[in-house]
Amino acid sequence: MLLRMSSLFLRTLRDDPADAEVPSHKLLVRAGYVRRVAPGIYSWLPLGKLVLENVTRIVREEMNRMGGQEVLFPALLPRDYYEASGRWTEYGDLLFRLKDRKGADYLLGPTHEELFTDMVKGEYSSYKDFPVTLYQIQTKYRDEARPRAGILRGREFVMKDSYSFDLDDDGLKRSYEQHREAYIKTFERLGIDYRICFAMSGAMGGSASEEFLAPAPSGEDTFVSCHSCGYAANAEAVTTPAPPEVTGERPPLRVLDTPGTPTIETLVDFVNERFGLGVTAAHTLKNVVLKVRTPGSDKAETLVVGVPGDREVDFKRLEGALAPGVPEIFEAADFAKHPGLVRGYIGPQVLKDLGITYLVDPRVVTGSSWVTGANEPGKHAADVVAGRDFVPDGTIEAAEIRAGDECPRCGSPVSIDRGIEIGHIFQLGRKYADAAQLDALGPDGKQIRITMGSYGIGVSRALAVIAEQKHDELGLVWPREVAPADVHIVATGKDNQIEVALDLAGELEATGLRVLVDDRKGVSPGVKFKDAELLGVPTIVVIGRGLAQGVAELRDRVTGVKEEIPLAEAAALVAAACRT
Amino acid sequence: MLLRMSSLFLRTLRDDPADAEVPSHKLLVRAGYVRRVAPGIYSWLPLGKLVLENVTRIVREEMNRMGGQEVLFPALLPRDYYEASGRWTEYGDLLFRLKDRKGADYLLGPTHEELFTDMVKGEYSSYKDFPVTLYQIQTKYRDEARPRAGILRGREFVMKDSYSFDLDDDGLKRSYEQHREAYIKTFERLGIDYRICFAMSGAMGGSASEEFLAPAPSGEDTFVSCHSCGYAANAEAVTTPAPPEVTGERPPLRVLDTPGTPTIETLVDFVNERFGLGVTAAHTLKNVVLKVRTPGSDKAETLVVGVPGDREVDFKRLEGALAPGVPEIFEAADFAKHPGLVRGYIGPQVLKDLGITYLVDPRVVTGSSWVTGANEPGKHAADVVAGRDFVPDGTIEAAEIRAGDECPRCGSPVSIDRGIEIGHIFQLGRKYADAAQLDALGPDGKQIRITMGSYGIGVSRALAVIAEQKHDELGLVWPREVAPADVHIVATGKDNQIEVALDLAGELEATGLRVLVDDRKGVSPGVKFKDAELLGVPTIVVIGRGLAQGVAELRDRVTGVKEEIPLAEAAALVAAACRT
Repeated sequence: MLLRMSSLFLRTLRDDPADAEVPSHKLLVRAGYVRRVAPGIYSWLPLGKLVLENVTRIVREEMNRMGGQEVLFPALLPRDYYEASGRWTEYGDLLFRLKDRKGADYLLGPTHEELFTDMVKGEYSSYKDFPVTLYQIQTKYRDEARPRAGILRGREFVMKDSYSFDLDDDGLKRSYEQHREAYIKTFERLGIDYRICFAMSGAMGGSASEEFLAPAPSGEDTFVSCHSCGYAANAEAVTTPAPPEVTGERPPLRVLDTPGTPTIETLVDFVNERFGLGVTAAHTLKNVVLKVRTPGSDKAETLVVGVPGDREVDFKRLEGALAPGVPEIFEAADFAKHPGLVRGYIGPQVLKDLGITYLVDPRVVTGSSWVTGANEPGKHAADVVAGRDFVPDGTIEAAEIRAGDECPRCGSPVSIDRGIEIGHIFQLGRKYADAAQLDALGPDGKQIRITMGSYGIGVSRALAVIAEQKHDELGLVWPREVAPADVHIVATGKDNQIEVALDLAGELEATGLRVLVDDRKGVSPGVKFKDAELLGVPTIVVIGRGLAQGVAELRDRVTGVKEEIPLAEAAALVAAACRT
Repeated sequence: MLLRMSSLFLRTLRDDPADAEVPSHKLLVRAGYVRRVAPGIYSWLPLGKLVLENVTRIVREEMNRMGGQEVLFPALLPRDYYEASGRWTEYGDLLFRLKDRKGADYLLGPTHEELFTDMVKGEYSSYKDFPVTLYQIQTKYRDEARPRAGILRGREFVMKDSYSFDLDDDGLKRSYEQHREAYIKTFERLGIDYRICFAMSGAMGGSASEEFLAPAPSGEDTFVSCHSCGYAANAEAVTTPAPPEVTGERPPLRVLDTPGTPTIETLVDFVNERFGLGVTAAHTLKNVVLKVRTPGSDKAETLVVGVPGDREVDFKRLEGALAPGVPEIFEAADFAKHPGLVRGYIGPQVLKDLGITYLVDPRVVTGSSWVTGANEPGKHAADVVAGRDFVPDGTIEAAEIRAGDECPRCGSPVSIDRGIEIGHIFQLGRKYADAAQLDALGPDGKQIRITMGSYGIGVSRALAVIAEQKHDELGLVWPREVAPADVHIVATGKDNQIEVALDLAGELEATGLRVLVDDRKGVSPGVKFKDAELLGVPTIVVIGRGLAQGVAELRDRVTGVKEEIPLAEAAALVAAACRT
């Protein structure tokens, strides 16, 4: 491959695009890799398309090596498949829906469990056929409420999704492990720094699940990691260790006058000063009222969530815990309809009588005692004991996780970081096989229900993540395997530098290298260097003033190291540099 | 590449699918290459995906060789681009339209003129930037009224579309010629038999245009070819040579009583017998009433089309001639609203007074004399002279073309065949550049309006066309470059044939060949042979009973020639056979 900048469809930009906040978005636009068409919808320019192809190829090679077989489903799908699985409704607003000219309902596929299941059911029927793993690399669609960060979170994006089909749980575990290994190889080849984190299953149903998260300040996911035992988990999936239950006699509940205590902080100060309780925010029980809407339904159920007063409710954890239900703000109008809920003074003591579901943080164990609302304006209650003065309907993982919290595995303090989800592997189990009645006829003539795994890699997102992790103040720094070229030859000067550069480019191309050569006339060396740094090809060769002395300059984009090399040996030395 | 049938996700079918009428549809389904998901929407199974990749790769290589630069646009597009060009409306029902969660209008791209134009406008501004040719290979969407023939005419399909951007008409012609050459190479590599035909521009606007049509009985297009001068044209685009105008005195128009003459045939017989006119159907003028609807509008204009009575109106030619207007049947209710139009007895004499547009076949020249309706029940008129008794508003190419018609170029009789459009090259001109104001700043500081070419290849359709043209009664017969594998090794027998077959497969794979090996146990030789013939890999090797004598059988799927080869030399001989 030999690309000449003089004719390459590429214009770099000096300034960051106005709507860009994260480095990958800024740099991919500035370097002329992508252009915005609509919110969360981008076009790929030639260099961007090359990088996207490289990422795709690596993903494909590792899927094939693992024994995956590539198929390709439509993106435009009839409603019935998703109706059968319940996801036509469950997906809510995330689904792009449309009608064809006959008025039939269609959707743009956000993920293809239903289709894979149906395909296997259509072709396979005997236990001898299994296991099988199918995958596709395809454009997918999700109508994100907040598309952001360029192609990091788009509404049209490229994804690799695969599914394993096994006869039993052990088989599923093997398929899952194979995918895990393949993902490790894939992300290593892509040059991505990642962590494997325990994950929630989300709207997918199923059990064991891990995410590959790429640490990045711009990440939308928060993950917890323990440097002591190696535990890592998406904050959504972190389970809070419950303290032991408390037994024995406790003083009776008492109601306290607490005027002017609108916040936990003012409440704690007030009860400590006025009543000498000696409590901290962690001893108070904060009750948050929500509406939970089931997708496809107009009705919303009222839910109260109780968390220790020193912690906020983490909305993503809450969403994860309630999925597919969607939590919504409980507004003034809703309070007006529930006079029993006294805003600012809600205590769980009355919820059973009000017929409102109450879910609590796992720390709220039986026998634990709390300062909480007394369900009267200006009043709180102390010595409110779980199991005695109120009985929660269950627990919920909704409280924020904080750095220094106990590791759920070893108890050491954990740290908290932000990351971007680039992969998800998931023991889906029999949810979709049940919906589609996907069975295999066993050796004994009995039907065996198939168990599935579901595995995804965000292909276009992985590209953005590489840009997010691999850049410096000058521009992109691509790992060689994904770079749009192996070497970027910059010809500066007014003599025959361009000619020499083109000769060298030809020689390097002949050895199988992918070459980009800046053969533009009338463009200053400064602009050419800046472009080379911005574009991020890992090896840069400068044919410039040294030409008279028979030398070129070899630059390593990663280390910044420059060395002079004799022009006569340039082809061999550059090729060697590209192949280390 | 080494695929083992024992684990390949493939089940061939013995019977043709119920909804399939054309060979490619039957065979691609039976051979397990594709499966139907919805009308005109298909999934690709592993072998189908491999063939699709091969076709795609060939198209890409030839586009790159020609100097095309690959980009990738979204399929989900906001309305504004198509609103600006007028195609949001013009496309009518063919467009899949949808709304996002905020109620904004989107469409699924049927073709991307607007986006390419906008992209070039965004990046380029100087005459020095041009010419440039961009292309993409992408999934496209059209809500066809009659999706049919499997992937030959789908609603979701893969297309290569490219656009050239030039400063002047000569540049456009060069770009057009380059594409023409690249298409010739592409279709030759794909092994497709094709004709280059003059074409209509359809809803695209613009001027010079040619189609690559693959002759096939199942084709939806009709094309004309002249074996004498080499002229070839889509029937839609054939221009009818006009005979010379007729001058001199003619008898006056006379009205004849013609009871019981509902058809042209009965009319001709009647007027010849009763009035001794001595005319044929070709001397009668048949007037067809239509409504023409403008997409996006509720109003339909009335139009009368006059053609010689010996010819039917060809609806596709009519549609082509009226595009983007859409012709519709003039129904009884419409006649009721136009009492001046006497059904069965319409003559053009009254149309001007009725305010109805009248377009005629080019044979209806000034001075030509016709037998036609007299606009009274049971009456016709003779000696109705064009230019004297009626003046048409213009001509229209709507009459059917017939084998034996005069070649518009040389006058020899033409032949008529059916074909499938696989490519279209088109000098689009400045339509979209005008809409988008796509200019380049010239060397003199003046703006130059860019002129564009538009070029398409139906990638998934080309695959189906190969299947349509390359098959026999046993199954598919792929050209090597698009075949899912180079060689299909069939192991029959109960001894160590499978082992030997796998060894040979490994050897062949090591030489770079793509190998499919039928290593299934418990499957009869007959079934394996039938599958090999159905799948259509060009070279078949049988490891069977000859194993004891140290021989294998080498079969050529195209010629059917079989020869015994010594097993010891099998790898070398098979490799040689695959590389001829």
